[in-house]
Amino acid sequence: MPAYSTNMRLKFPIVALLLEIITICLYAVFVTYDVGHGHSSAHHGSKNETESNPVALYPMFQDVHVMIFIGFGFLMTFLKRYGFSSVGLNLLLAAFGLQWGLLLQNIWHMEDGKIRVSITSMINADFSTATVLISFGAVLGKTSPVQLLIMTLLEITIFSLNEHVVVELLEASDVGASMTIHAFGAYFGLAVARMLYRPGLRNGHDNEGSVYHSDLFAMIGTVYLWMFWPSFNSAIAETVPEQLTAIINTYFSLAACALAAYATSSLVEKKGKLDMVHIQNATLAGGVAVGTCADMNIAPFGAMLIGVTAGIISTLGFKFLTPILASNLGIQDTCGVHNLHGMPGILGGLAGIIAAALGRKSGISPGIQAAALASSLGFALVGGAITGLLLKLPFWGQPPDQNCFDDSLYWEVPEEEEPSESLTHTDHSKNKAEA
Amino acid sequence: MPAYSTNMRLKFPIVALLLEIITICLYAVFVTYDVGHGHSSAHHGSKNETESNPVALYPMFQDVHVMIFIGFGFLMTFLKRYGFSSVGLNLLLAAFGLQWGLLLQNIWHMEDGKIRVSITSMINADFSTATVLISFGAVLGKTSPVQLLIMTLLEITIFSLNEHVVVELLEASDVGASMTIHAFGAYFGLAVARMLYRPGLRNGHDNEGSVYHSDLFAMIGTVYLWMFWPSFNSAIAETVPEQLTAIINTYFSLAACALAAYATSSLVEKKGKLDMVHIQNATLAGGVAVGTCADMNIAPFGAMLIGVTAGIISTLGFKFLTPILASNLGIQDTCGVHNLHGMPGILGGLAGIIAAALGRKSGISPGIQAAALASSLGFALVGGAITGLLLKLPFWGQPPDQNCFDDSLYWEVPEEEEPSESLTHTDHSKNKAEA
Amino acid sequence: MPAYSTNMRLKFPIVALLLEIITICLYAVFVTYDVGHGHSSAHHGSKNETESNPVALYPMFQDVHVMIFIGFGFLMTFLKRYGFSSVGLNLLLAAFGLQWGLLLQNIWHMEDGKIRVSITSMINADFSTATVLISFGAVLGKTSPVQLLIMTLLEITIFSLNEHVVVELLEASDVGASMTIHAFGAYFGLAVARMLYRPGLRNGHDNEGSVYHSDLFAMIGTVYLWMFWPSFNSAIAETVPEQLTAIINTYFSLAACALAAYATSSLVEKKGKLDMVHIQNATLAGGVAVGTCADMNIAPFGAMLIGVTAGIISTLGFKFLTPILASNLGIQDTCGVHNLHGMPGILGGLAGIIAAALGRKSGISPGIQAAALASSLGFALVGGAITGLLLKLPFWGQPPDQNCFDDSLYWEVPEEEEPSESLTHTDHSKNKAEA
Repeated sequence: MPAYSTNMRLKFPIVALLLEIITICLYAVFVTYDVGHGHSSAHHGSKNETESNPVALYPMFQDVHVMIFIGFGFLMTFLKRYGFSSVGLNLLLAAFGLQWGLLLQNIWHMEDGKIRVSITSMINADFSTATVLISFGAVLGKTSPVQLLIMTLLEITIFSLNEHVVVELLEASDVGASMTIHAFGAYFGLAVARMLYRPGLRNGHDNEGSVYHSDLFAMIGTVYLWMFWPSFNSAIAETVPEQLTAIINTYFSLAACALAAYATSSLVEKKGKLDMVHIQNATLAGGVAVGTCADMNIAPFGAMLIGVTAGIISTLGFKFLTPILASNLGIQDTCGVHNLHGMPGILGGLAGIIAAALGRKSGISPGIQAAALASSLGFALVGGAITGLLLKLPFWGQPPDQNCFDDSLYWEVPEEEEPSESLTHTDHSKNKAEA
Repeated sequence: MPAYSTNMRLKFPIVALLLEIITICLYAVFVTYDVGHGHSSAHHGSKNETESNPVALYPMFQDVHVMIFIGFGFLMTFLKRYGFSSVGLNLLLAAFGLQWGLLLQNIWHMEDGKIRVSITSMINADFSTATVLISFGAVLGKTSPVQLLIMTLLEITIFSLNEHVVVELLEASDVGASMTIHAFGAYFGLAVARMLYRPGLRNGHDNEGSVYHSDLFAMIGTVYLWMFWPSFNSAIAETVPEQLTAIINTYFSLAACALAAYATSSLVEKKGKLDMVHIQNATLAGGVAVGTCADMNIAPFGAMLIGVTAGIISTLGFKFLTPILASNLGIQDTCGVHNLHGMPGILGGLAGIIAAALGRKSGISPGIQAAALASSLGFALVGGAITGLLLKLPFWGQPPDQNCFDDSLYWEVPEEEEPSESLTHTDHSKNKAEA
Repeated sequence: MPAYSTNMRLKFPIVALLLEIITICLYAVFVTYDVGHGHSSAHHGSKNETESNPVALYPMFQDVHVMIFIGFGFLMTFLKRYGFSSVGLNLLLAAFGLQWGLLLQNIWHMEDGKIRVSITSMINADFSTATVLISFGAVLGKTSPVQLLIMTLLEITIFSLNEHVVVELLEASDVGASMTIHAFGAYFGLAVARMLYRPGLRNGHDNEGSVYHSDLFAMIGTVYLWMFWPSFNSAIAETVPEQLTAIINTYFSLAACALAAYATSSLVEKKGKLDMVHIQNATLAGGVAVGTCADMNIAPFGAMLIGVTAGIISTLGFKFLTPILASNLGIQDTCGVHNLHGMPGILGGLAGIIAAALGRKSGISPGIQAAALASSLGFALVGGAITGLLLKLPFWGQPPDQNCFDDSLYWEVPEEEEPSESLTHTDHSKNKAEA
């Protein structure tokens, strides 16, 4: 395939090492520990013993860490031949992204020219990588590691800009980041996917599907995301009571969402069977959608209503909207991030606007919340489109159509010779003998 | 198969949505946050900083959460073609069960007509689902999702009754719930399994076995249960020293149990080989059996003796008792919950009686402990029998014998076309050509 | 194979039960709870609220626990037919090792003739098993369960001796145990492997490789080790600020190491492809290498430089050194522990010497640090050689060459009959019919 050069021999190591060296140089100048220093964060108020102990948030950090590296990584292993890339590139991108995110998120509030690292800034750095991993889902199987590193660099930069606008300038409320992470990451990724549209994949691809065990690997990702989402939505809450509220709301939203996703999946499938794609993804939409108002006084049943709505919308999106996006709009969304992060993220933003209008949290207004949602979508679509155009340049090693969704282009893949196979081979020899 | 209607097109979504809607309505009326309010729990005394911080137990809650959703879910993926149902229905049942359990467990102590949700009540809600997941193990592969939702509804209701009797009326001690969760869940499930006895499966079923990789998936469940069991047994201990005692006792009981399970497995198998069924299950019996007296002053070596006994009994149960139960009593126990939860649960209750007699914890008596064990077994057997009779009604979509242990009845299952397979297909074409 | 007796029928259960019974007897005499008693540990100073709450370190303990049982266990499941042994024997050895380690580590500082168990001593007990699991990696697939139990007994005993020398006598600093665990475990295992050299495996073995899904199982281990390494390196730090420093340094070292490992893997492989062996292992070398100076004021960029160096060295080791060790020195290192734990462990020791010389932590000296490194290597090589000689005795059930890397020698392994297979069989019958 002459139009593409997928050989990574020099491009990939050079890009990866160059990014790491630049990052280390910036860290040498700007980054130090937040030790014995009070708190670098802008949090004031009542986080009493949690605040006074600088490692109190560490267990929550680790939950978020598991979501980023196991949750997102394994969720994408559902493809039959793309598991190495899913979990492996997820690790690579997040490892670079967290270093880059920590820099970009904190250049706005340095003290004495220094960024002071605390558990809170590590949580936020992990958060920033989530946007990239969501966008990764949209272009999964159709991009090279070099393209993805470039996307990580650009997306986290643009994310940090939008986050600064939403949190610092607008002072909107988005504790679980429905808008700034989920909607942003999804629409950024969809814009990139649109720019990288592949007509050759219009009729699908042999490898764009799962096998039995790859679906089980993906469930590891699903279940970890589902379990630890309360940590994601509550980790950076400003006070302990708000943190507890965010935990409880997310717990119930996800539980209700699961029931809705199962019911809807059965309702829309032939013979009422359940579809693993729905279960792997739509059960999580409640965590996304309750994000913005997780720390608000919406009552447990309010959280459950949000969860049920998200579960239904998300499942219907997978069933009916994803095919339309692909065929009519040229948006090929491998993992269906529009259904898991896009629409539920907007739903979360809207729920925040309503909650603000109903006075469910002091100091927020529906107009500001709406502006935050608009800002997130705007930065995502424009930023994603520009990034996608850049990634179209022919020297990033983008795979040709026929090698999409296939690990063997970028990985040494072991020959298959399972116990079952050797049996089969025996049979074959017999066959041949008989033939 | 005219006697059965396994089509879930309407039954399953209607039942699931109906249960969720009813639950949301009840939550709207009864459930609120336990924020800034002192503590809803009945705990008094010395849980000092843990008590004063309402999220202090959150890491323990997450450990229990992982046991429920990863531990139980993946433990049951050992069956070669039933992994989707194992981990998927586990998620569904626990997601509904925790909502229902939180209601039922707390109607006994509402304040101002409200149930106040705290981390402790979330832990207890997760606990209540464990009973269902244990019973699920007994009937795994032989029940429809609708049957299982009905069982969840009924079992958690009956569990809450028994828990009220044991904890509030008898004031028995059962911190790790050997009696109220493990023995209860096992004998409830066995009673259901007895009622749903299938003569057609007397000689086994082609799908009732594992393959190499399904056994590895199951080990994910085993290892998580094994690791986090100290959290299960200590999460709701009343004081910090008792919590520490429960952690230590469970840690050592499980370690000793593992050695005993491995040794016994090798001893009873041909040529001394280890059997994955034993390793996946009997290594955990020490966590079950030490539950009741985990917070008591039984000394580490006492915990280890309990663990060794449980590991031996459990392994022997798998080897010798399970086949007898199936052939002589008509109790087909798919996962062998009698060996992992039933007998070790009773052992735990007995150990509690002995520890009470020896004065290992103040304020408990052997008679009361014995009454608690009897109550748990009674509620389980009677409740399970009634539930099993209800589940026999012909309209719940129960699978016919030949479709047992098979995901494809209720799930869209991907066609198998692994890398290995496509190799095989290539070989086949060659074969054909040669032929 | 007359020279070997691999039958475990009596040997294995007797050894396992005997070890457990002796352990329980020793516990009955020596071990009690550290409850309501101040702190058994030697820590003084400022671990303020963490110190005053005896379960404050419990979440860190559980992270370490996950590294030991899931991390090490699944990391070794990469072999196509040795997954049961990898995760199963990992559990067995660690379960015995932690009981033995807790005894051996604490006989040096008993109070009133008693060892008092706390969360800190449980963390240290888990740590002691890590040495065995590292050595297990060197001999993976070539040893019997009985041999491994004996190795566990001896290695932990020798480890405790060296730890006493390094920590108590030399008072060297090694918070993340680069020297006392990683270098020690690796060189101990390599010495054992040298003694058990198998000329018959010079040209490799059919089963010494991975299949697609076994590599994904191994990634579960990798990612958990990668995520929780900050807990490993910080769990026993003396003060909260040092603990925070260790968390931050490890976080950044690992992130930078991942980039370096990916880049180097691509650089040294044909066509720039990534190699799963490198990704599974070398991405973790940064956690090993930053261990000794994790709690020192080396600045985040210093940690990143250590991580990058470790990632490069480790990957190059897998590519170039491992084959030389096997062919020229007779050291057959199944998992390449020399590259993940050996060289990075020494690198960590050297970094500690340099950091001491630069005054990055008060109260430590480069000479003492160098002595600690020398002591760890000396105990490891001599102890490992003696242990290896003992394990060569012909009655431990060592597997013959042709049965290496094969679960079926010690485990009941299910016949392969996956969904894919039955399809294949159908095809075969068709084939036969056509033929």
